[in-house]
Amino acid sequence: MIKVSIAGGTGYTAGELLRILLNHPEVEIDSVISSTSVGLPIAETHRDLLGETELRFVETFNNPDVIFLCLGHGLSRAFLDGNTIPPSCKIIDLGNDFRNDPQYAGRHFVFGLCELNKDKIRRASNIANPGCFATSIMLALLPLAALNKLTEDIHIHAITGSTGAGKKPGETTHFSYRDNNISVYKAFTHQHLDEIKRTLEAAGSKKLPPINFVPMRGDFTRGIFASVYTKWDGDAVSLEETVEHYKTFYRESPFVFVSDKAISLKEVVNTNKGLLHIEFHNGYIHITSIIDNLLKGASGQAVQNMNLMFGLDETTGLKLKASAF
Amino acid sequence: MIKVSIAGGTGYTAGELLRILLNHPEVEIDSVISSTSVGLPIAETHRDLLGETELRFVETFNNPDVIFLCLGHGLSRAFLDGNTIPPSCKIIDLGNDFRNDPQYAGRHFVFGLCELNKDKIRRASNIANPGCFATSIMLALLPLAALNKLTEDIHIHAITGSTGAGKKPGETTHFSYRDNNISVYKAFTHQHLDEIKRTLEAAGSKKLPPINFVPMRGDFTRGIFASVYTKWDGDAVSLEETVEHYKTFYRESPFVFVSDKAISLKEVVNTNKGLLHIEFHNGYIHITSIIDNLLKGASGQAVQNMNLMFGLDETTGLKLKASAF
Amino acid sequence: MIKVSIAGGTGYTAGELLRILLNHPEVEIDSVISSTSVGLPIAETHRDLLGETELRFVETFNNPDVIFLCLGHGLSRAFLDGNTIPPSCKIIDLGNDFRNDPQYAGRHFVFGLCELNKDKIRRASNIANPGCFATSIMLALLPLAALNKLTEDIHIHAITGSTGAGKKPGETTHFSYRDNNISVYKAFTHQHLDEIKRTLEAAGSKKLPPINFVPMRGDFTRGIFASVYTKWDGDAVSLEETVEHYKTFYRESPFVFVSDKAISLKEVVNTNKGLLHIEFHNGYIHITSIIDNLLKGASGQAVQNMNLMFGLDETTGLKLKASAF
Amino acid sequence: MIKVSIAGGTGYTAGELLRILLNHPEVEIDSVISSTSVGLPIAETHRDLLGETELRFVETFNNPDVIFLCLGHGLSRAFLDGNTIPPSCKIIDLGNDFRNDPQYAGRHFVFGLCELNKDKIRRASNIANPGCFATSIMLALLPLAALNKLTEDIHIHAITGSTGAGKKPGETTHFSYRDNNISVYKAFTHQHLDEIKRTLEAAGSKKLPPINFVPMRGDFTRGIFASVYTKWDGDAVSLEETVEHYKTFYRESPFVFVSDKAISLKEVVNTNKGLLHIEFHNGYIHITSIIDNLLKGASGQAVQNMNLMFGLDETTGLKLKASAF
Repeated sequence: MIKVSIAGGTGYTAGELLRILLNHPEVEIDSVISSTSVGLPIAETHRDLLGETELRFVETFNNPDVIFLCLGHGLSRAFLDGNTIPPSCKIIDLGNDFRNDPQYAGRHFVFGLCELNKDKIRRASNIANPGCFATSIMLALLPLAALNKLTEDIHIHAITGSTGAGKKPGETTHFSYRDNNISVYKAFTHQHLDEIKRTLEAAGSKKLPPINFVPMRGDFTRGIFASVYTKWDGDAVSLEETVEHYKTFYRESPFVFVSDKAISLKEVVNTNKGLLHIEFHNGYIHITSIIDNLLKGASGQAVQNMNLMFGLDETTGLKLKASAF
Repeated sequence: MIKVSIAGGTGYTAGELLRILLNHPEVEIDSVISSTSVGLPIAETHRDLLGETELRFVETFNNPDVIFLCLGHGLSRAFLDGNTIPPSCKIIDLGNDFRNDPQYAGRHFVFGLCELNKDKIRRASNIANPGCFATSIMLALLPLAALNKLTEDIHIHAITGSTGAGKKPGETTHFSYRDNNISVYKAFTHQHLDEIKRTLEAAGSKKLPPINFVPMRGDFTRGIFASVYTKWDGDAVSLEETVEHYKTFYRESPFVFVSDKAISLKEVVNTNKGLLHIEFHNGYIHITSIIDNLLKGASGQAVQNMNLMFGLDETTGLKLKASAF
Repeated sequence: MIKVSIAGGTGYTAGELLRILLNHPEVEIDSVISSTSVGLPIAETHRDLLGETELRFVETFNNPDVIFLCLGHGLSRAFLDGNTIPPSCKIIDLGNDFRNDPQYAGRHFVFGLCELNKDKIRRASNIANPGCFATSIMLALLPLAALNKLTEDIHIHAITGSTGAGKKPGETTHFSYRDNNISVYKAFTHQHLDEIKRTLEAAGSKKLPPINFVPMRGDFTRGIFASVYTKWDGDAVSLEETVEHYKTFYRESPFVFVSDKAISLKEVVNTNKGLLHIEFHNGYIHITSIIDNLLKGASGQAVQNMNLMFGLDETTGLKLKASAF
Repeated sequence: MIKVSIAGGTGYTAGELLRILLNHPEVEIDSVISSTSVGLPIAETHRDLLGETELRFVETFNNPDVIFLCLGHGLSRAFLDGNTIPPSCKIIDLGNDFRNDPQYAGRHFVFGLCELNKDKIRRASNIANPGCFATSIMLALLPLAALNKLTEDIHIHAITGSTGAGKKPGETTHFSYRDNNISVYKAFTHQHLDEIKRTLEAAGSKKLPPINFVPMRGDFTRGIFASVYTKWDGDAVSLEETVEHYKTFYRESPFVFVSDKAISLKEVVNTNKGLLHIEFHNGYIHITSIIDNLLKGASGQAVQNMNLMFGLDETTGLKLKASAF
């Protein structure tokens, strides 16, 4: 059994990790750490866990094989500074501290996009888990990057659910504001652009064109819907060949599928899947890409990384029932 | 023209007042007071007012004929203590400070339920505007109270939109919590019970039975749907006679209507109307009652009171287009 | 392995069954029957199943150990009339044909409320799976019925998600109507009242009082929130004793829990759990009860019944990750 | 008073017209025509109108000054074929029959985009009212077209509310499907592209570049949020100059405003306004544009056209209270 510790145990991604790990056949919980709720039952914070665990938040870890850091962006370094983690203990960071800056405290963080770095992840001791927007966009573009076929401006609109903004309530997550509302934020400047670019280059894109990314706030709780297009020579590579290339590219990826029909977000909500659909129009290739931001975009992918790191089947504990509605 | 001042100008009820008053043919704005936003454009807080007003928040009133207090419960007394309001200036309080305790600072506050106290309101200088839950429930029960026919336990479930909880974000108004969720709060103990009881007695109920009221938080922004029933002798007074009695009771009330068909909340959203539907079952009379909590349940009713106090037609400025969808 | 057939395979409850059964360790699919979609991939109808099954709809069953009937109310009898089902094949009917009328075609249908009839279900060959509203309400009242303490009028409001209305689109499931809306339907006359009464009597209620039940349509997709109260002598049985009685009553029920804190619907959505919360007010006991209408209220409970009928652990395949948001 | 007839009286745009026109100070209703509901009260179909009108649907018009055609796309020609409309009676068509094909039955239909064709509309007898997506997109681009500055690919994503799909229920407007869901449809091929192109050319664009338009279905009822960008030489024309140009361009347009801050959809819902926000990024000008699809995108704009055609102030009857929440 893998002994797991979770730091930052009261947040959304920690809750989602617990929902997965309490049913994971190869995991036992070492500790769920919270600086604010020590001693309180976990099920009082993550209310859906009532009846499923008697665990309480603790101050620090015992003897874990792996620690998941669910601390909020920028706080993972401080955690490593303030805690003496045994070198044998692996780390999976769900924040953005090590995605673009993989060296810290004597540890090297592998970028945990399983669909690109599976072998490295299997050998890794430390993982920088990808961002949610980044994951949905990279899944759309990786097969093109691998062909080094990204040559002209990439155009992206992607809409995220409210859980992407975390637990702390604020103006744009107030129900009275958000319900039946839509807005744009950080247009063309979202912080995930860096990890997207680095990853596409790592995948084989030699001279990456500009990426134009407009993130939007959706009036739903879970999921990311990304719509991506870039110039494509459909005469050189036909739609059939392109779809086939995508399917081949993701052949070893048990959670990523190409749909022949148009897709809608709820087809992946509450699962660890990524779903893609491809069309050609106006000389562009248009890819729609959907994931659950808390699962494939965060905690699900983190467990997928853990499975790989510990030599388990990648899908262990991750065959989740879609909510579908 | 009536010169209007609004205290507590940044909150939801103040915004809703402004949406009405900027189009009200007999009103000019004296001042919109805010302790936190002095000097800032009103349309930066109430964003839908962009293009409709250049007004800015100010520190205090100039020379108003009436002040609307939109301060939050318990803060109206402090405002009267801290400000010297000319005796000629009328006051309409949207908080709950004076609903059950109508005497303060030498002023007497008339309970502003237009459907019961129209004549008193016409002569009033100070109004305690009714609560939103209370309004929806009183409209359902007033005609029965007037017959002194409320004799056995009254059973009420009422669901409110999120705007009833105000602008300050919190756990139960977080979109990630509230979306697609339902919950009960303050079951049997809601603070509006007092004003409901006092009003039903004032309407003619001699010996009021227990009122059992379960408030619920709905996953919508605007409106209250109340479902109310109590024992009723359908042999003594038939459904037809009862409906006729309701229609007669509300004959002079331009915003309250009895529907012969079952009702759904959005039939009144973004209007100042109250809609009722009556059925008999199991020896009970069952009344469903719907209002928009921010309009008939707050700012709309406040303007209705103002219209009456200043001798205008009750509906002036309040013929609002329903949003319907 | 249990060979399972599903009749009525394109509807919501069939889809939900498939979501569970495809991951159930003791099940293999014998056939998914549809009169309208023979030959088409199941994942084209239940789109979230893309990548999880290559199955196609078929015209009839092969050699199943159990058939789930997901046919819509009133159509199960016709299915039994029109198909020769081997006597050894068990039947679990998700419709309402046999709930109050358990004898048909030489088969006896046990009412499949696992929390009441576990032993009978273990020995049963045919199950009438309970209704969704009925399940949420029975879970709230069973422990009181068992004490024969239901003596005065029972008052119930319960709000259902839109999936309770099934797949066929109509006026009250149109998004433009339902979004941000609330309405009452079949007040005091809902068809589940019969099975509720029969079950409470079976549980021990000797002289059942009137049950007043107001069903409501909620603007969410999944779940039922029931608010139930009836007179209770809190001096005779204290809150602590009552809560303890509930917990004892449900000791052997792995999916039903009593929460010491107020509950909200999403704590059970996408799980097979039932959650209860109890308070005393005004001489009443007030019970809130929540389930997922498609799981504990339909397909989840159906699988729970199957598990019991086939001697499996009751929870097999039903430890589902809550969607939580 | 203008005598108004509405054909196709039971649909969404007809209902919205009635909500406006019943409060319009210069209008009286000549007739509300429906082939399916003759004799029934209008308020039974448009339920929010209860208490506001006793009108009933009729079979044909009496003696109107203007007829609004709310018939659904493709049915307006048939209506003109089947009815003898006096030449003096004006026509405003809310369908798409005459937007790109303005000559029919001896009548010439002016494209009713008030922000471009105000003078022509004032003199027009027949109006082809613009489409909803088209309106939101044209408002974003008209000032650039007027400068003949549209030279490189235009990139558009726009999300629409469910009311854009009309009253007839279907799979993608089923609440169980649409709630908390997002999807793309008619990517790059939406039928509004024609009227957009024609209009931008009419506004001054000499050599229109390709327009790439991805429409999306949003999980809200009202409104369109359009995000539009195209290459822009920010060194040649600064952001300040560009914003100033937009403000100047819309100086005579009482419903269109440029916001200096980022915008969110609900700022215009239930109003006839169009709101724009402009930013520069990556060598692109990025414009977000919002309207209410049923008002500025349909019935509100239709009344605006009527006001112009009859010499009234453009805003008469259209100063609507935003719903805001």
